[in-house]
Amino acid sequence: MDLTLQVLVSPEKLTLDQISGFCAAIARGGATVVQLRAKTDPIRAMIRYGQELREATRNEGLGFIVNDRVDVAMAVKADGVHVGQDDMPVPLVRAIAPNLLVGLSVSNLEEAHAARVQNPDYLGVGPIFPTFSKLDASAPTGVDQLAQICAMVDIPVVAIGGIGKLNVSQVWGYPIAGIAVISAVMSAEDKENACRSLRPENRGLTRR
Amino acid sequence: MDLTLQVLVSPEKLTLDQISGFCAAIARGGATVVQLRAKTDPIRAMIRYGQELREATRNEGLGFIVNDRVDVAMAVKADGVHVGQDDMPVPLVRAIAPNLLVGLSVSNLEEAHAARVQNPDYLGVGPIFPTFSKLDASAPTGVDQLAQICAMVDIPVVAIGGIGKLNVSQVWGYPIAGIAVISAVMSAEDKENACRSLRPENRGLTRR
Repeated sequence: MDLTLQVLVSPEKLTLDQISGFCAAIARGGATVVQLRAKTDPIRAMIRYGQELREATRNEGLGFIVNDRVDVAMAVKADGVHVGQDDMPVPLVRAIAPNLLVGLSVSNLEEAHAARVQNPDYLGVGPIFPTFSKLDASAPTGVDQLAQICAMVDIPVVAIGGIGKLNVSQVWGYPIAGIAVISAVMSAEDKENACRSLRPENRGLTRR
Repeated sequence: MDLTLQVLVSPEKLTLDQISGFCAAIARGGATVVQLRAKTDPIRAMIRYGQELREATRNEGLGFIVNDRVDVAMAVKADGVHVGQDDMPVPLVRAIAPNLLVGLSVSNLEEAHAARVQNPDYLGVGPIFPTFSKLDASAPTGVDQLAQICAMVDIPVVAIGGIGKLNVSQVWGYPIAGIAVISAVMSAEDKENACRSLRPENRGLTRR
Protein backbone atom coordinates (compact mmCIF):
# COMPACT_ATOMS: atom_id res chain seq x y z
CA MET A 1 0.00 0.00 0.00
CA ASP A 2 1.24 3.48 -0.88
CA LEU A 3 1.23 5.24 2.49
CA THR A 4 2.22 8.69 1.18
CA LEU A 5 -0.91 10.60 2.13
CA GLN A 6 -3.53 9.19 4.46
CA VAL A 7 -6.69 11.14 5.31
CA LEU A 8 -8.63 10.27 8.47
CA VAL A 9 -12.39 10.62 8.24
CA SER A 10 -15.31 10.27 10.62
CA PRO A 11 -19.09 10.51 10.24
CA GLU A 12 -19.16 13.85 12.09
CA LYS A 13 -16.97 15.50 9.47
CA LEU A 14 -18.04 13.62 6.37
CA THR A 15 -21.61 12.47 5.86
CA LEU A 16 -22.51 9.22 4.17
CA ASP A 17 -23.67 10.92 0.98
CA GLN A 18 -20.49 12.98 0.72
CA ILE A 19 -18.18 9.95 0.74
CA SER A 20 -18.14 9.23 -2.97
CA GLY A 21 -17.40 12.80 -4.08
CA PHE A 22 -14.89 13.22 -1.27
CA CYS A 23 -12.90 10.15 -2.25
CA ALA A 24 -12.82 11.24 -5.89
CA ALA A 25 -11.55 14.70 -4.89
CA ILE A 26 -8.80 13.56 -2.54
CA ALA A 27 -7.67 10.90 -5.02
CA ARG A 28 -7.29 13.62 -7.68
CA GLY A 29 -5.28 15.62 -5.17
CA GLY A 30 -2.90 12.74 -4.50
CA ALA A 31 -4.23 11.12 -1.33
CA THR A 32 -3.43 7.40 -1.22
CA VAL A 33 -5.27 6.04 1.83
CA VAL A 34 -8.46 6.77 3.77
CA GLN A 35 -8.71 5.79 7.42
CA LEU A 36 -12.07 5.55 9.16
CA ARG A 37 -12.00 6.64 12.79
CA ALA A 38 -15.46 6.24 14.31
CA LYS A 39 -14.90 4.98 17.84
CA THR A 40 -18.19 5.99 19.40
CA ASP A 41 -20.69 5.19 16.66
CA PRO A 42 -23.05 2.22 16.96
CA ILE A 43 -21.57 -0.73 15.09
CA ARG A 44 -24.29 -0.95 12.46
CA ALA A 45 -23.77 2.70 11.55
CA MET A 46 -20.01 2.08 11.51
CA ILE A 47 -20.45 -0.88 9.16
CA ARG A 48 -22.80 1.00 6.82
CA TYR A 49 -20.38 3.92 6.69
CA GLY A 50 -17.41 1.60 6.25
CA GLN A 51 -19.09 -0.25 3.40
CA GLU A 52 -19.67 3.04 1.61
CA LEU A 53 -16.03 4.04 2.15
CA ARG A 54 -14.88 0.62 0.95
CA GLU A 55 -16.74 1.01 -2.31
CA ALA A 56 -15.63 4.59 -2.89
CA THR A 57 -11.96 3.96 -2.06
CA ARG A 58 -11.90 0.90 -4.32
CA ASN A 59 -13.39 2.96 -7.16
CA GLU A 60 -10.71 5.62 -6.70
CA GLY A 61 -7.76 3.30 -6.19
CA LEU A 62 -7.31 4.41 -2.58
CA GLY A 63 -6.27 2.13 0.28
CA PHE A 64 -8.77 1.78 3.11
CA ILE A 65 -7.91 1.34 6.77
CA VAL A 66 -10.26 1.11 9.76
CA ASN A 67 -9.17 2.50 13.10
CA ASP A 68 -9.37 0.35 16.20
CA ARG A 69 -12.18 -2.11 15.36
CA VAL A 70 -10.81 -5.30 13.85
CA ASP A 71 -14.31 -6.76 13.50
CA VAL A 72 -15.50 -3.76 11.51
CA ALA A 73 -12.36 -3.82 9.35
CA MET A 74 -13.04 -7.47 8.54
CA ALA A 75 -16.77 -6.99 8.01
CA VAL A 76 -16.32 -4.18 5.47
CA LYS A 77 -13.33 -5.85 3.78
CA ALA A 78 -10.93 -3.03 4.56
CA ASP A 79 -7.29 -3.37 3.48
CA GLY A 80 -6.03 -2.77 6.98
CA VAL A 81 -6.65 -1.86 10.57
CA HIS A 82 -4.88 0.74 12.66
CA VAL A 83 -4.56 0.05 16.37
CA GLY A 84 -3.39 2.17 19.28
CA GLN A 85 -1.46 1.31 22.40
CA ASP A 86 -4.71 0.41 24.20
CA ASP A 87 -6.39 -1.46 21.36
CA MET A 88 -6.11 -5.15 20.51
CA PRO A 89 -2.43 -6.17 20.54
CA VAL A 90 -0.97 -6.66 17.04
CA PRO A 91 -0.25 -10.40 17.46
CA LEU A 92 -3.93 -11.03 18.28
CA VAL A 93 -5.00 -8.93 15.30
CA ARG A 94 -2.74 -11.07 13.09
CA ALA A 95 -4.22 -14.23 14.58
CA ILE A 96 -7.81 -13.32 13.80
CA ALA A 97 -7.28 -11.27 10.63
CA PRO A 98 -4.18 -12.55 8.82
CA ASN A 99 -4.99 -10.68 5.61
CA LEU A 100 -5.20 -7.20 7.12
CA LEU A 101 -2.36 -4.70 6.98
CA VAL A 102 -1.77 -3.63 10.58
CA GLY A 103 -0.66 -0.17 11.66
CA LEU A 104 0.28 0.67 15.24
CA SER A 105 0.35 4.10 16.88
CA VAL A 106 3.37 5.12 18.94
CA SER A 107 4.03 8.53 20.42
CA ASN A 108 7.61 8.27 21.61
CA LEU A 109 10.86 6.32 21.38
CA GLU A 110 9.96 3.96 24.20
CA GLU A 111 6.70 2.91 22.53
CA ALA A 112 8.46 2.60 19.18
CA HIS A 113 11.04 0.33 20.76
CA ALA A 114 8.36 -1.85 22.37
CA ALA A 115 6.41 -1.90 19.09
CA ARG A 116 9.17 -3.80 17.31
CA VAL A 117 8.32 -7.10 18.98
CA GLN A 118 4.66 -6.61 18.05
CA ASN A 119 5.68 -6.56 14.38
CA PRO A 120 3.12 -4.20 12.81
CA ASP A 121 3.27 -3.40 9.07
CA TYR A 122 3.80 0.28 9.72
CA LEU A 123 4.09 2.68 12.63
CA GLY A 124 1.91 5.75 13.00
CA VAL A 125 4.13 8.19 14.88
CA GLY A 126 2.72 11.23 16.63
CA PRO A 127 1.26 13.60 17.34
CA ILE A 128 4.29 15.20 15.71
CA PHE A 129 2.95 18.68 16.44
CA PRO A 130 0.28 19.82 18.92
CA THR A 131 -3.17 18.91 17.60
CA PHE A 132 -6.77 19.60 18.43
CA SER A 133 -8.21 16.85 16.25
CA LYS A 134 -7.59 14.08 18.78
CA LEU A 135 -8.53 15.14 22.28
CA ASP A 136 -6.84 12.22 24.00
CA ALA A 137 -3.58 12.57 22.09
CA SER A 138 -0.26 12.12 23.89
CA ALA A 139 2.29 14.90 24.36
CA PRO A 140 3.73 15.93 20.98
CA THR A 141 6.44 13.61 19.68
CA GLY A 142 8.35 16.37 17.91
CA VAL A 143 10.52 15.99 14.83
CA ASP A 144 13.64 15.02 16.77
CA GLN A 145 11.98 11.90 18.16
CA LEU A 146 10.44 11.25 14.74
CA ALA A 147 13.96 11.21 13.30
CA GLN A 148 15.20 8.87 16.02
CA ILE A 149 12.26 6.51 15.49
CA CYS A 150 12.85 6.46 11.71
CA ALA A 151 16.47 5.52 12.39
CA MET A 152 15.51 2.81 14.87
CA VAL A 153 12.83 0.83 13.01
CA ASP A 154 12.96 -0.83 9.61
CA ILE A 155 9.22 -0.70 8.86
CA PRO A 156 7.44 2.24 7.22
CA VAL A 157 6.79 5.26 9.43
CA VAL A 158 3.74 7.45 8.96
CA ALA A 159 3.88 10.85 10.65
CA ILE A 160 0.59 12.08 12.11
CA GLY A 161 -0.74 14.89 14.28
CA GLY A 162 -0.89 18.62 13.66
CA ILE A 163 0.57 18.35 10.16
CA GLY A 164 -0.61 21.04 7.73
CA LYS A 165 0.66 23.11 4.86
CA LEU A 166 2.72 25.35 7.16
CA ASN A 167 4.85 22.56 8.61
CA VAL A 168 4.57 19.65 6.19
CA SER A 169 7.84 20.45 4.39
CA GLN A 170 9.62 20.02 7.69
CA VAL A 171 8.18 16.52 8.14
CA TRP A 172 9.06 15.42 4.61
CA GLY A 173 12.67 16.10 5.54
CA TYR A 174 12.72 12.80 7.41
CA PRO A 175 12.74 9.31 5.85
CA ILE A 176 9.04 8.68 6.37
CA ALA A 177 6.73 6.56 4.24
CA GLY A 178 4.04 9.17 4.47
CA ILE A 179 1.86 11.47 6.49
CA ALA A 180 -1.66 11.21 7.91
CA VAL A 181 -3.89 14.22 8.38
CA ILE A 182 -7.32 15.22 9.58
CA SER A 183 -7.88 18.99 9.80
CA ALA A 184 -5.47 19.89 7.01
CA VAL A 185 -7.85 18.25 4.56
CA MET A 186 -11.19 18.01 6.37
CA SER A 187 -11.26 21.71 7.33
CA ALA A 188 -10.31 22.86 3.83
CA GLU A 189 -12.95 24.07 1.40
CA ASP A 190 -11.07 22.58 -1.55
CA LYS A 191 -10.07 19.10 -0.44
CA GLU A 192 -8.41 18.19 -3.71
CA ASN A 193 -6.04 21.15 -3.48
CA ALA A 194 -5.50 20.57 0.25
CA CYS A 195 -4.19 17.10 -0.57
CA ARG A 196 -2.11 18.35 -3.48
CA SER A 197 -0.40 20.97 -1.32
CA LEU A 198 0.67 18.31 1.20
CA ARG A 199 2.52 16.04 -1.22
CA PRO A 200 6.29 16.46 -1.26
CA GLU A 201 6.71 16.68 -5.02
CA ASN A 202 4.32 19.61 -5.11
CA ARG A 203 6.46 21.48 -2.61
CA GLY A 204 9.67 21.10 -4.60
CA LEU A 205 10.92 18.44 -2.18
CA THR A 206 12.71 15.22 -2.94
CA ARG A 207 11.62 12.42 -0.63
CA ARG A 208 14.29 10.76 1.41
CA MET B 1 -23.10 -27.17 22.45
CA ASP B 2 -25.36 -28.10 25.34
CA LEU B 3 -27.40 -24.92 25.85
CA THR B 4 -29.32 -26.13 28.91
CA LEU B 5 -28.02 -23.62 31.44
CA GLN B 6 -26.09 -20.51 30.43
CA VAL B 7 -24.75 -18.09 33.03
CA LEU B 8 -23.92 -14.52 31.99
CA VAL B 9 -20.95 -12.94 33.74
CA SER B 10 -19.28 -9.53 33.75
CA PRO B 11 -16.19 -8.11 35.46
CA GLU B 12 -18.36 -6.03 37.86
CA LYS B 13 -19.95 -9.15 39.30
CA LEU B 14 -17.09 -11.62 39.02
CA THR B 15 -13.49 -10.56 39.47
CA LEU B 16 -10.64 -12.01 37.45
CA ASP B 17 -9.32 -14.08 40.35
CA GLN B 18 -12.76 -15.53 41.08
CA ILE B 19 -13.24 -16.94 37.57
CA SER B 20 -11.59 -20.30 38.08
CA GLY B 21 -13.45 -21.20 41.29
CA PHE B 22 -16.68 -19.84 39.88
CA CYS B 23 -16.52 -21.99 36.76
CA ALA B 24 -15.77 -25.09 38.82
CA ALA B 25 -18.75 -24.38 41.09
CA ILE B 26 -21.31 -23.73 38.35
CA ALA B 27 -20.09 -26.75 36.38
CA ARG B 28 -20.68 -28.94 39.45
CA GLY B 29 -24.16 -27.41 39.70
CA GLY B 30 -24.98 -28.28 36.10
CA ALA B 31 -24.30 -25.06 34.17
CA THR B 32 -23.28 -25.78 30.58
CA VAL B 33 -22.27 -22.41 29.11
CA VAL B 34 -20.73 -19.15 30.31
CA GLN B 35 -21.39 -15.95 28.41
CA LEU B 36 -19.18 -12.89 28.88
CA ARG B 37 -21.07 -9.61 28.70
CA ALA B 38 -18.64 -6.71 29.12
CA LYS B 39 -19.76 -4.02 26.73
CA THR B 40 -18.14 -1.02 28.35
CA ASP B 41 -14.76 -2.37 29.39
CA PRO B 42 -11.58 -1.35 27.56
CA ILE B 43 -10.74 -4.01 24.99
CA ARG B 44 -7.47 -5.10 26.59
CA ALA B 45 -9.27 -5.73 29.89
CA MET B 46 -12.00 -7.56 28.00
CA ILE B 47 -9.44 -9.78 26.28
CA ARG B 48 -7.55 -10.50 29.50
CA TYR B 49 -10.82 -11.42 31.23
CA GLY B 50 -11.99 -13.45 28.26
CA GLN B 51 -8.74 -15.40 28.13
CA GLU B 52 -9.15 -16.32 31.78
CA LEU B 53 -12.75 -17.40 31.16
CA ARG B 54 -11.67 -19.39 28.11
CA GLU B 55 -9.16 -21.36 30.15
CA ALA B 56 -11.52 -21.96 33.08
CA THR B 57 -14.48 -22.98 30.92
CA ARG B 58 -12.30 -25.36 28.91
CA ASN B 59 -11.03 -26.92 32.14
CA GLU B 60 -14.58 -27.44 33.36
CA GLY B 61 -16.08 -28.65 30.10
CA LEU B 62 -18.26 -25.55 29.77
CA GLY B 63 -19.08 -23.79 26.52
CA PHE B 64 -17.93 -20.18 26.26
CA ILE B 65 -19.74 -17.42 24.41
CA VAL B 66 -18.81 -13.73 24.13
CA ASN B 67 -21.56 -11.14 23.91
CA ASP B 68 -21.55 -8.56 21.14
CA ARG B 69 -17.82 -8.30 20.27
CA VAL B 70 -16.89 -10.63 17.44
CA ASP B 71 -13.26 -9.49 17.53
CA VAL B 72 -12.96 -10.33 21.23
CA ALA B 73 -14.68 -13.69 20.71
CA MET B 74 -12.16 -14.54 17.99
CA ALA B 75 -9.18 -13.22 19.93
CA VAL B 76 -9.92 -15.31 23.02
CA LYS B 77 -10.95 -18.37 20.99
CA ALA B 78 -14.49 -18.49 22.36
CA ASP B 79 -16.87 -21.14 21.07
CA GLY B 80 -19.44 -18.59 20.06
CA VAL B 81 -20.66 -15.04 19.95
CA HIS B 82 -24.05 -13.72 20.95
CA VAL B 83 -25.34 -10.68 19.09
CA GLY B 84 -28.31 -8.41 19.62
CA GLN B 85 -30.61 -6.65 17.19
CA ASP B 86 -28.22 -3.67 17.03
CA ASP B 87 -24.97 -5.63 16.88
CA MET B 88 -23.18 -6.93 13.81
CA PRO B 89 -25.70 -8.74 11.55
CA VAL B 90 -25.38 -12.54 11.68
CA PRO B 91 -24.39 -12.96 8.00
CA LEU B 92 -21.42 -10.61 8.52
CA VAL B 93 -20.45 -12.48 11.69
CA ARG B 94 -20.48 -15.71 9.67
CA ALA B 95 -18.36 -14.11 6.97
CA ILE B 96 -15.59 -13.02 9.31
CA ALA B 97 -15.82 -15.81 11.89
CA PRO B 98 -17.09 -18.98 10.20
CA ASN B 99 -16.14 -21.20 13.15
CA LEU B 100 -18.12 -19.37 15.82
CA LEU B 101 -21.51 -20.51 17.02
CA VAL B 102 -23.81 -17.49 16.63
CA GLY B 103 -26.67 -16.64 18.94
CA LEU B 104 -29.12 -13.84 18.23
CA SER B 105 -31.38 -12.01 20.69
CA VAL B 106 -35.02 -11.47 19.86
CA SER B 107 -37.67 -10.07 22.14
CA ASN B 108 -40.88 -10.69 20.24
CA LEU B 109 -42.52 -12.62 17.43
CA GLU B 110 -41.72 -10.02 14.81
CA GLU B 111 -38.00 -10.10 15.58
CA ALA B 112 -38.06 -13.90 15.71
CA HIS B 113 -39.66 -13.97 12.30
CA ALA B 114 -37.07 -11.59 10.85
CA ALA B 115 -34.30 -13.58 12.53
CA ARG B 116 -35.00 -16.64 10.42
CA VAL B 117 -33.40 -15.18 7.30
CA GLN B 118 -30.32 -14.25 9.35
CA ASN B 119 -29.85 -17.93 10.16
CA PRO B 120 -28.30 -17.86 13.65
CA ASP B 121 -27.43 -21.11 15.45
CA TYR B 122 -29.79 -20.35 18.29
CA LEU B 123 -32.20 -17.64 19.40
CA GLY B 124 -31.97 -15.93 22.78
CA VAL B 125 -35.59 -15.02 23.54
CA GLY B 126 -36.47 -12.48 26.20
CA PRO B 127 -36.65 -10.88 28.57
CA ILE B 128 -39.27 -13.53 29.37
CA PHE B 129 -40.05 -11.83 32.70
CA PRO B 130 -39.30 -8.29 33.92
CA THR B 131 -35.60 -7.98 34.77
CA PHE B 132 -33.31 -5.50 36.44
CA SER B 133 -30.07 -7.09 35.21
CA LYS B 134 -30.21 -5.47 31.80
CA LEU B 135 -31.22 -1.83 31.99
CA ASP B 136 -31.84 -1.45 28.25
CA ALA B 137 -33.95 -4.60 27.96
CA SER B 138 -37.08 -4.59 25.81
CA ALA B 139 -40.61 -5.04 27.16
CA PRO B 140 -41.06 -8.54 28.59
CA THR B 141 -41.71 -11.22 25.98
CA GLY B 142 -43.89 -13.32 28.25
CA VAL B 143 -44.35 -17.08 28.08
CA ASP B 144 -47.13 -16.92 25.49
CA GLN B 145 -44.85 -15.30 22.93
CA LEU B 146 -42.07 -17.69 23.98
CA ALA B 147 -44.38 -20.58 23.10
CA GLN B 148 -45.28 -19.03 19.76
CA ILE B 149 -41.62 -18.43 18.91
CA CYS B 150 -40.71 -22.02 19.81
CA ALA B 151 -43.44 -23.19 17.48
CA MET B 152 -42.29 -20.91 14.67
CA VAL B 153 -38.55 -21.54 14.49
CA ASP B 154 -36.66 -24.78 14.03
CA ILE B 155 -33.44 -23.70 15.74
CA PRO B 156 -32.76 -23.99 19.48
CA VAL B 157 -34.43 -21.38 21.69
CA VAL B 158 -32.80 -20.13 24.88
CA ALA B 159 -35.11 -18.30 27.28
CA ILE B 160 -33.53 -15.33 29.09
CA GLY B 161 -34.54 -12.50 31.38
CA GLY B 162 -35.90 -12.52 34.90
CA ILE B 163 -35.71 -16.30 35.22
CA GLY B 164 -35.11 -17.58 38.77
CA LYS B 165 -36.06 -20.44 41.00
CA LEU B 166 -39.60 -19.09 41.53
CA ASN B 167 -40.56 -19.13 37.84
CA VAL B 168 -38.12 -21.48 36.15
CA SER B 169 -40.49 -24.46 36.19
CA GLN B 170 -42.93 -22.44 34.15
CA VAL B 171 -40.29 -21.82 31.46
CA TRP B 172 -39.23 -25.45 31.30
CA GLY B 173 -42.80 -26.22 30.29
CA TYR B 174 -41.98 -25.00 26.78
CA PRO B 175 -39.83 -26.80 24.20
CA ILE B 176 -36.72 -24.69 24.82
CA ALA B 177 -33.10 -25.77 24.45
CA GLY B 178 -32.22 -24.02 27.67
CA ILE B 179 -32.23 -20.94 29.84
CA ALA B 180 -29.78 -18.12 30.45
CA VAL B 181 -29.55 -16.31 33.77
CA ILE B 182 -27.65 -13.55 35.51
CA SER B 183 -29.03 -12.65 38.95
CA ALA B 184 -30.39 -16.11 39.76
CA VAL B 185 -26.82 -17.36 39.94
CA MET B 186 -24.65 -14.26 40.38
CA SER B 187 -26.65 -12.94 43.35
CA ALA B 188 -26.68 -16.31 45.10
CA GLU B 189 -24.21 -17.09 47.88
CA ASP B 190 -23.99 -20.71 46.80
CA LYS B 191 -23.61 -20.62 43.03
CA GLU B 192 -23.36 -24.38 42.65
CA ASN B 193 -26.72 -24.91 44.30
CA ALA B 194 -28.23 -21.97 42.47
CA CYS B 195 -27.39 -23.70 39.20
CA ARG B 196 -28.60 -27.06 40.45
CA SER B 197 -31.96 -25.64 41.44
CA LEU B 198 -32.51 -24.23 37.94
CA ARG B 199 -32.11 -27.49 36.02
CA PRO B 200 -35.35 -29.19 35.01
CA GLU B 201 -34.44 -32.68 36.23
CA ASN B 202 -33.83 -31.29 39.71
CA ARG B 203 -37.33 -29.85 39.79
CA GLY B 204 -39.02 -33.10 38.91
CA LEU B 205 -39.66 -31.92 35.37
CA THR B 206 -39.36 -33.81 32.12
CA ARG B 207 -38.05 -31.59 29.36
CA ARG B 208 -40.16 -31.24 26.26
